[in-house]
Formats: sequence, C-alpha cells, structure tokens
Amino acid sequence: MATLTSKTVGKGKSEKAAASEGTITLLKNGGITSPEGFLAAGVAAGIKKKKGARDLALVVSTVPAEVAAVFTVNKVKAAPVRVSIEHAKLGKVRAIIANSGCANACTGIDGIRDAKETTALAAAAVTEAGFPAKAEEVLVCSTGRIGTLIPMPSLRRGVKAAAAALASESVTAAEAIMTTDTFAKRAAVRIVIDGKPVVIGGIAKGAGMIHPDMATMFCFVTTDAAIDRTTLRRCVDEGVARSFNSISVDGDTSTNDTVIVLANGQAKNAKLTAKHPQLPLFRSALRRVMKELARMIVRDGEGISKVVEVTVKGAASAREAKLAAEAVGKSTLVKCSWCGNDPNWGRIMDALGYSKARMQEELVEIFYDGLQAVVNGQRSLVPETRIKKIVTRPEFTITINLHLGQGEYTFLTADLTEEYVTLNKGE
Amino acid sequence: MATLTSKTVGKGKSEKAAASEGTITLLKNGGITSPEGFLAAGVAAGIKKKKGARDLALVVSTVPAEVAAVFTVNKVKAAPVRVSIEHAKLGKVRAIIANSGCANACTGIDGIRDAKETTALAAAAVTEAGFPAKAEEVLVCSTGRIGTLIPMPSLRRGVKAAAAALASESVTAAEAIMTTDTFAKRAAVRIVIDGKPVVIGGIAKGAGMIHPDMATMFCFVTTDAAIDRTTLRRCVDEGVARSFNSISVDGDTSTNDTVIVLANGQAKNAKLTAKHPQLPLFRSALRRVMKELARMIVRDGEGISKVVEVTVKGAASAREAKLAAEAVGKSTLVKCSWCGNDPNWGRIMDALGYSKARMQEELVEIFYDGLQAVVNGQRSLVPETRIKKIVTRPEFTITINLHLGQGEYTFLTADLTEEYVTLNKGE
Repeated sequence: MATLTSKTVGKGKSEKAAASEGTITLLKNGGITSPEGFLAAGVAAGIKKKKGARDLALVVSTVPAEVAAVFTVNKVKAAPVRVSIEHAKLGKVRAIIANSGCANACTGIDGIRDAKETTALAAAAVTEAGFPAKAEEVLVCSTGRIGTLIPMPSLRRGVKAAAAALASESVTAAEAIMTTDTFAKRAAVRIVIDGKPVVIGGIAKGAGMIHPDMATMFCFVTTDAAIDRTTLRRCVDEGVARSFNSISVDGDTSTNDTVIVLANGQAKNAKLTAKHPQLPLFRSALRRVMKELARMIVRDGEGISKVVEVTVKGAASAREAKLAAEAVGKSTLVKCSWCGNDPNWGRIMDALGYSKARMQEELVEIFYDGLQAVVNGQRSLVPETRIKKIVTRPEFTITINLHLGQGEYTFLTADLTEEYVTLNKGE
Repeated sequence: MATLTSKTVGKGKSEKAAASEGTITLLKNGGITSPEGFLAAGVAAGIKKKKGARDLALVVSTVPAEVAAVFTVNKVKAAPVRVSIEHAKLGKVRAIIANSGCANACTGIDGIRDAKETTALAAAAVTEAGFPAKAEEVLVCSTGRIGTLIPMPSLRRGVKAAAAALASESVTAAEAIMTTDTFAKRAAVRIVIDGKPVVIGGIAKGAGMIHPDMATMFCFVTTDAAIDRTTLRRCVDEGVARSFNSISVDGDTSTNDTVIVLANGQAKNAKLTAKHPQLPLFRSALRRVMKELARMIVRDGEGISKVVEVTVKGAASAREAKLAAEAVGKSTLVKCSWCGNDPNWGRIMDALGYSKARMQEELVEIFYDGLQAVVNGQRSLVPETRIKKIVTRPEFTITINLHLGQGEYTFLTADLTEEYVTLNKGE
C-alpha cells in the first residue's frame, strides 16, 4: 500500500532504549485535539452518496504551526496532493481540510482549480472563526473514487459548517475521513520534555485495500511540541518509514496517500533541535502514535481475518531484507493460505525464491510465533499440528532467517479473504 | 506466474507474415502424440490422495530426440528441476516422467535421490518396452505441495504401469499432470516443410493460481521435425517469451515450472537450421501451440470469470511496456473491479503510476475493446455505461497508450474472484 516519499533513515534507537529516557503515556480516547491549541470538526457535506454520512474534516491550529508532510510516490498524483505539496513548501500551516467520497484524481486542470478553491474557502472560514489564515496556509486532501470531480456546491456549504463546528474533539473529524473503514482511528501519547507535558495525537484512515471507492491512506498528526522544521521533518521521515511504509494489505499504492504532521509549540518546551537531549524521546513518541495508527489500519482491513507480522533477518543487506519480507507479505498464495489456517511454509519458500533478494534454499529457517517450522530449507521436526494452531490465531508473527548477513526488516500484513474480493469488486 | 529462464528475444516476424509463407493447420483433438514417433500414457499411481486419480505421465520418443527445456527462475528449485537441468544438458532425450500430487520441492538430498531414482526407473521401464534408454536420457517433473517427499513405493509401481500402457493417445497423460485444472490441455498443429507434413503437439497444466497443492506450470511439446539443437533452443526461447512468460493469474512464480520441447526428426524434412527458408513457419507454428496452451491455462484458472488481454503501447522502451502491463495485470484492486463488472479505469491509472515504467498522467489513453475510456489521463466523453458493458464480457482487451515511445507489450491475465480465495485458502 502506501509507499510515501521519505528519505531513507538509519535504524533508530530501539524503543526500549528510548523508553528508558522518559515515559511515553498512551492517552485514553486521545486524538488530534489532545495537544494544546488544536481544534477539529467533521461534518456531512453531501459529497458521499450516503445521506448524512460525515465526509468533510477540518483541523485547525490556533497559532500557525510547523509542518512536515509526506506524500504518495505514485506518479499519478491527485489534484489535492499537488496543491498540498506546493503549500507545504511555503512555510507554516494553519489548517487541513480533507474530504472523503471523491479522490479528485485524474481530473486535470479542473481538479486543480477545485482543490485550490477549497483551500481558499477553508482559509476564509477559519479566518471568520477567529484564526486568520491565507489559502497557502491550508493543506487539502481528498479520498474516494478516481476520475470524478468534487461536487463543489456541497463542499462550499460543508466548509462553512465545519468551521462553525470546530471543537476540542476529534471523533467527528476521524469519522469524516473514513471511507469503508469500520472504526474511526485515533491515538495520542503524552511525554514530558523540559518538565513540560508534550502531547502528540493523530487520526488516520485505511489504505488501498478495501473498497472500489477508496484510494487513499491519510494520517494527520498534531503536537504542541516546539520543534524546528528540519528536525520535525527528520522525525516524520523516520516514523513513516517504520510505520505506514511497512504495512501492506494488497500491495497497491494510491494516488492520494498523505501524512501531515503539524507542530504548534504550545507546550512551551525549549525548541527541539538535533542537539536537544530529549529529541530521541520525542521521536519515539511520534513513532509510537504512527505505529498505533498503522496497526489499526491493517486490523481494519475489511474482510481481513488475520494480522501477520513478517520479519526477515540475516539478509545480505537491509534492502534485500525488505524485498524478501515484501515478497512474502504480498504473495496472494501465501495470504490465501493464512486465511485457511494453513501454514503452508512451502509458499513462503517459493516467494523468497522469486523475490529479488539473494537467498540460499539450504540456509533458510522459518518460525511461526517463535516455533521453528523450517530448518535448512526443509520441514523441521516440530509437528505440523502445532504450527497449524499458531496460524489460527488472529495475530501471529513469521520470522525468516536467511543466514546470509545482517539485513533485517519487519512488514505488517494480513490474510486475503473472500470478503476482500466481495468488497473490492465494485459498485 | 511462471517466469522461466530464457534468453531475451527480438520481436519475431508477425504471425500474419509467417502465415503467408505457409499454412498452420490446427489439428482437432491433437496433442503430444500427434507427431510421428511419440507415445504417451497416464496412470493412477497412488501419489494423489484421491483414489484412482491419474497422477503419473510418461512420454516417450521412439528414437532419441533433440531437446530444449526452459525452467523456473525461482531461486528455490525443486529436486526434479535440478535433475532435469543436468540431464537436458547432456544430449538427446528419450522420455519425460512427470507426477502430480507432490512437488518434491524443499526436500533436500532425499528429494534429489528420489528424483534420480525416478529417472532410472523410467529408463528401465522404457527400455523393457522396446526403447533402450539411460537414466540421463529421461527428464523428470513433479507438481503438488511443497515440502513433502514422493511416496516412492507408489511411484515405482506407477512407472511400470505407465510403460505398459504407452499408446498413441495423449489424453491420459494430459490428465495425469492435472492438479486442480478442470480440463486436460492439449493442442497440435500441422505445417508442411520441404513437402513433408510436420506436426507439433503439446500438453500443459495450469500454474500458480488455483490451489494450495499446486505449485507449477508444465508444458510438454513434441514435434517430428528434424531440427538442430541450437535452432530448436532459439525457437523455444522465443515461443516461451511470447506465451507462458506473458500470462499471469496471481503473480506467483513456482519452484517447479518447466517447459520441455522434444524434436525427433521422424518427419524426415531437411534439417531445420537458422538458414532454412521455412524456419519462420516452424517458429510460428511452435509459438501457436504454446499460445493455445497458455490461453487454456488462463481460461482454466479456477474461480476466474474473465480473461483480459492488457496491451501497453507507446512506452519509453519495451522493458517499460512490460513493467506497466504487469503492474496493471497483477493489481489486486484492478482484478477485483473486473470481477465486479466495473471498468474502474482510475485503478489502472493508479497501477500505471506506481509501476516502474515512466509515464505522464496527461498523455495516457485507455481503451476497452477499442472503445476509448480515458483521453489525456482523464475521463473520455464515451458514456461509462458503454465501457461497463465491455467489462461484463468473458474476454476483453485493454489497450493503454503512454505516448512516450515505441515500447509495446501484451500480457494475458484474469480477474480475481471470491472463488479464487476459497480454492487457495487451504488444506
């Protein structure tokens, strides 16, 4: 799914080490308005066909915020993605306006015009609500079917309604970006930096896996941390690489995938820079929020019955570990066998064999939740019934050791079910 | 699916041009014993669990035959593949012994030992039947679940029974290599070379798409043409590239995929070499047999309701045309939408966008059975209902023009259905 533009990052400090430098507290019912100085709203603008369904979300920072945004690497980029890329370059950001029900992708100059108008409308409405904003300070996102234009009259009414509804809660906004997601995805954590509480919160929606009308993964994160732009950018790149870029449900990458992180400094900590001793804690906390949301996305794949964490160790390089883990985690046959509670490690061997990673059949070991099924590329002595039992679990891990080097990569994936096809086949 | 080792080949003469040099006649009920000097049999050896199901095929040339074989590029190669690679190098071939019900892959030295014993057993049985053969003159193939050993007592009995049953019919052999194929796949054509009738026949089984116990695509072709080894090899490489390496049902490549072509010279034509004026006719005829069998394989994908031919034109290079066509033809979301009779060309744009082929959204055209759905990367004026109608057809074409260069590639694929998952999920 979502492969987003982000710089390659080195292996960060382990979560354990980071935790020892400070506590990361998960906030119950936390979300995008948990940090100081953020408001949100979600309304039914009439963009979705279903009457009364929320389809327009607005997120506002009470003061201009630093921004780091990561967009799809798909060469076909939706109009809102193109506009947001430009706006994110310009400087601080005041608001995010996001609709579901229409992707506004493959819509040419008309689509660009509409996306730009949307940012202007949002800026005007937010200004009227007391938070002066220019169009260039608004980022815009759309998700839904590709190839159709947004019904602008509905959107225009919706933007005003959303601005009027701004509040310190993020459930309605999380709902408004849902397409076929079955639950609203929210998470927030609190850490302490320079003796001040700092909060990071986020909302997200599922990606490229569920429904014909869904083309996108979104993640919007807010924090009241004071942090400089470059440092924020680095933290976000690393967080994305280890969360949203390490999950897959169906291997498709969308035209609209977007991650936006806003930092408004309202926590009043000493500004986080590369040299700040507590930067690792902030980085871990941000990663924690992103990982929580990424796991919710996989777990919410409609028609999915199992979440499987595939780790490849001992690859000749980190790149090859990724290639091998992705070949396994994206194989239709492997995913089908999980659905049927069948370990069928032969299909994993097969996928490793056709991946672009170097491997030697005779060196491969495969473990299911730590139990060894394959040794030297062949069936182990562990009774297959015990391995089968593991594959019936709703979540399990598969660890593959190629015994060629130090490369390691973990990929979160899911099984492939009949329901997936039913939900994706159309109309 | 099957990506087999074969040299890259230039664009052959067009079929039309070739046909003008001679007629290719499709033989009704033709198969692997249609050429002179070939016998075959298929028996129930008890390797498959289902009692009485044919699971062992034997193909014999009455005189030693030239061979050209192409094997899977998967780094995990089944024991029979490893043995056959060695034997095919040594010289002429007398027989092929092939079982279904067990892939004999990931079985270590025990698997190699069994595959070698199988060639020795077949050589002895064929010798006893009046066709003196050494073990090295036998190629061995296996298909079925990965990771288990062949029940050798059953196989030993089966080899004798198969040799005793050798006859001029190929239906039982075609049946014996079936796993979850729903029909036996056979084809044969006749051409005239140097005034002599020359026949090419083949049998095949489906690949990597249907069932957990199925790991393989097989295609065995026989011809009575007299042809030198190098020329045969070139014709086979080209034929495979334009047939079996251009089809996909689920994108998985197996450990056992094998194409074997035997030429025994019994047609008594002047030996075909690179300089023979009728070589293009032979090449076209061989390609025709392979294409017929490849199309049967796609059509027989269980749980598949549609066969779709995806052509990418105007790519920056031939390689990029292939990358683009494969991205579309293997996209889970694209395949699901076909299943639901939904053109959803937005998903095709999306797949083109994440493929490794260069593309510019604004230049893309997409046609369904010649009807233009997308112009300049956007919806055309053709009513969507007309495009929808095409996608309800059991077979249709999608032609994509990237308008960047001369690269062109055609890929045969199918939709993804609930039934596919049901058939693949287990046991």
